[in-house]
Amino acid sequence: MASKDNLPKDDTRAEPTRIALVGYGNIGRATEMAVNENERVVGDMEIVGIITRRPNNLYEKRCEESGKKDVPIVSSSEPSKWKSLGIDVAILCGGSKSDLPVQGPVFASYFNTVDSFDTHDNIGPWIDEKGNYKLGHKKEMNNAAYANGNTSIISAGWDPGTFSLERVLQGAFIPGANPQEFYGLGEKGGLSMGHSDALRQLNEVQDARQYTHTRQEALERVRKGENPNLSRGETHWRECVVVPKEGVNKTELEKRIKDMPGYFRDFKTEVKFVSQEEMDRKYSEMPHDGLVLSVSPTENGNTRIIEYRNQWGSNPEGTAGILAACARAAHRLNMRGSHGAYGMFDIPPCDYSAKSRDTLFNEYT
Amino acid sequence: MASKDNLPKDDTRAEPTRIALVGYGNIGRATEMAVNENERVVGDMEIVGIITRRPNNLYEKRCEESGKKDVPIVSSSEPSKWKSLGIDVAILCGGSKSDLPVQGPVFASYFNTVDSFDTHDNIGPWIDEKGNYKLGHKKEMNNAAYANGNTSIISAGWDPGTFSLERVLQGAFIPGANPQEFYGLGEKGGLSMGHSDALRQLNEVQDARQYTHTRQEALERVRKGENPNLSRGETHWRECVVVPKEGVNKTELEKRIKDMPGYFRDFKTEVKFVSQEEMDRKYSEMPHDGLVLSVSPTENGNTRIIEYRNQWGSNPEGTAGILAACARAAHRLNMRGSHGAYGMFDIPPCDYSAKSRDTLFNEYT
Repeated sequence: MASKDNLPKDDTRAEPTRIALVGYGNIGRATEMAVNENERVVGDMEIVGIITRRPNNLYEKRCEESGKKDVPIVSSSEPSKWKSLGIDVAILCGGSKSDLPVQGPVFASYFNTVDSFDTHDNIGPWIDEKGNYKLGHKKEMNNAAYANGNTSIISAGWDPGTFSLERVLQGAFIPGANPQEFYGLGEKGGLSMGHSDALRQLNEVQDARQYTHTRQEALERVRKGENPNLSRGETHWRECVVVPKEGVNKTELEKRIKDMPGYFRDFKTEVKFVSQEEMDRKYSEMPHDGLVLSVSPTENGNTRIIEYRNQWGSNPEGTAGILAACARAAHRLNMRGSHGAYGMFDIPPCDYSAKSRDTLFNEYT
Repeated sequence: MASKDNLPKDDTRAEPTRIALVGYGNIGRATEMAVNENERVVGDMEIVGIITRRPNNLYEKRCEESGKKDVPIVSSSEPSKWKSLGIDVAILCGGSKSDLPVQGPVFASYFNTVDSFDTHDNIGPWIDEKGNYKLGHKKEMNNAAYANGNTSIISAGWDPGTFSLERVLQGAFIPGANPQEFYGLGEKGGLSMGHSDALRQLNEVQDARQYTHTRQEALERVRKGENPNLSRGETHWRECVVVPKEGVNKTELEKRIKDMPGYFRDFKTEVKFVSQEEMDRKYSEMPHDGLVLSVSPTENGNTRIIEYRNQWGSNPEGTAGILAACARAAHRLNMRGSHGAYGMFDIPPCDYSAKSRDTLFNEYT
């Protein structure tokens, strides 16, 4: 399609995207699977390397796992080796707390990147505990990427990520609505890694998992179009499954958990004590699901509802499918000269797809 | 955010978008309401004129309706008067069959446009009944818009439109899935204008409405992850509410309806005869709703489901909210130099929103 700008054209389908994983925890492993799935189903991306703090350990571990593709594993402390991998996009699979703030700008100065930075308050400018002004993740990544002709997609995944994108759309298409989010609508609820970690850091706790559940009464109020201003404590309750250390007073531990500020104090919270055996047997999965819902009648009083929901049997594996598509988009944006940092709602949706624009018009319009 | 491309920047918020409605039927009236709602809620757009075949009739009609804003009404046969309205975007509210193929390229050569062209087979190149090669709506609009420095968003609304966009996203984020659509999931089903018109064209019919309903058994199969290849007849059934003319043999009419090729023959169809009084009292609303659903487990067998649903008490009013947001996006794209024709999935989602990118990052990420 003739046009002088750089929105996607019919001919912008990139060469296969060569992807490196930076970090190989839950998200890294799931992302490897998602990229391999794309390679198998649509054939336009491949893993060209894994960058990790302990390459030797990972190499040995992967040799033991049957079916793992043989890919180069290099150290995160040897940038000279990164370049040799021929990377188009590095998917940063580390955590938002300590990994991404340090790794992010470094990798963005070398490669196109995708990350799932989710510390909401540190995306824009913020002041740290010592009173120092911080640019925030968005500007840090933009500066590093832009100065080096790279493209970074930040805060990708589902929340933030697709949920951010869908909130933008819902708010635009229903101007009067206040898009609301609900998590853990299914029976199992949604496993929260952050809250599970917080529980595990208690001295009295041997192991723990935290499942977030939607409060149905709040969901009903939104569905009715009340557009209520609800706190997270009013929309969700928290289920803590805890293996206490031996000899711990459970009553006191339960009280201590329910009183944790920032985590449980403002929520209806249930604490359930289980044995390690029961934890391993019944709570090993990582389910999560969520809903973005906008409800607001028209001036004539006619119903207007848009809702977006995803359900993942495995939260990392669901998230990874989105990260892989973001790698494709980052590669394309970069090839079109769109440098700097972008959020998922900045990107033409067709750039996430392996299909050409003509095919998309034909199949989906 | 510094960048040399023309994806949206923080400073691309356009001046209020001055909108003209071309045509003033169900969609035109609903779009007027949606633009006025945006003007009230976010203040970034306004109606500056209505272009219609019969301006005098419309002027008189609007004078009788209280609360209608006084806007210039000009004739669709006097292009010289269109320019004086100061139009940023013309929203083409005519039908796909005879209005848009003619009006579309004409208006696209004068202004930025938004249309909801939905004749699927004529979006790309096609051959007409006389054997003539036709460029198709996409290229016709692209040629007219591009040559005149204008921007056209084509096939906007919900289906095609947001549903196209969501299919693109679902297919990208779950590579193995085949996004499926269902309509009329609610109790009332979805009013189909095309099928209602087809019924009304029968000699024996005085008035008719056709409601499309989802076949729950098909939806269940998709939800289970079977990814079945289902025909429309397997996924939906059709409810015809018909006022027969006096003296008509209902048994024969019912048989004739159920046998209509292209409309009812391939569907489970129920015909219900009612009086005109009952039709007017019980079937005056225009509800519609639909679902885009992708289900495909990961390689590890973990559930992966994304679904998108909208429910409109009034189909035109729900659609109009999307068209209004598309007018905003068309205006912005044009100001950034993105000329030619685009589908909804070509456009950065943030361009649909009245809010700045910084605000969107802050509120929705």
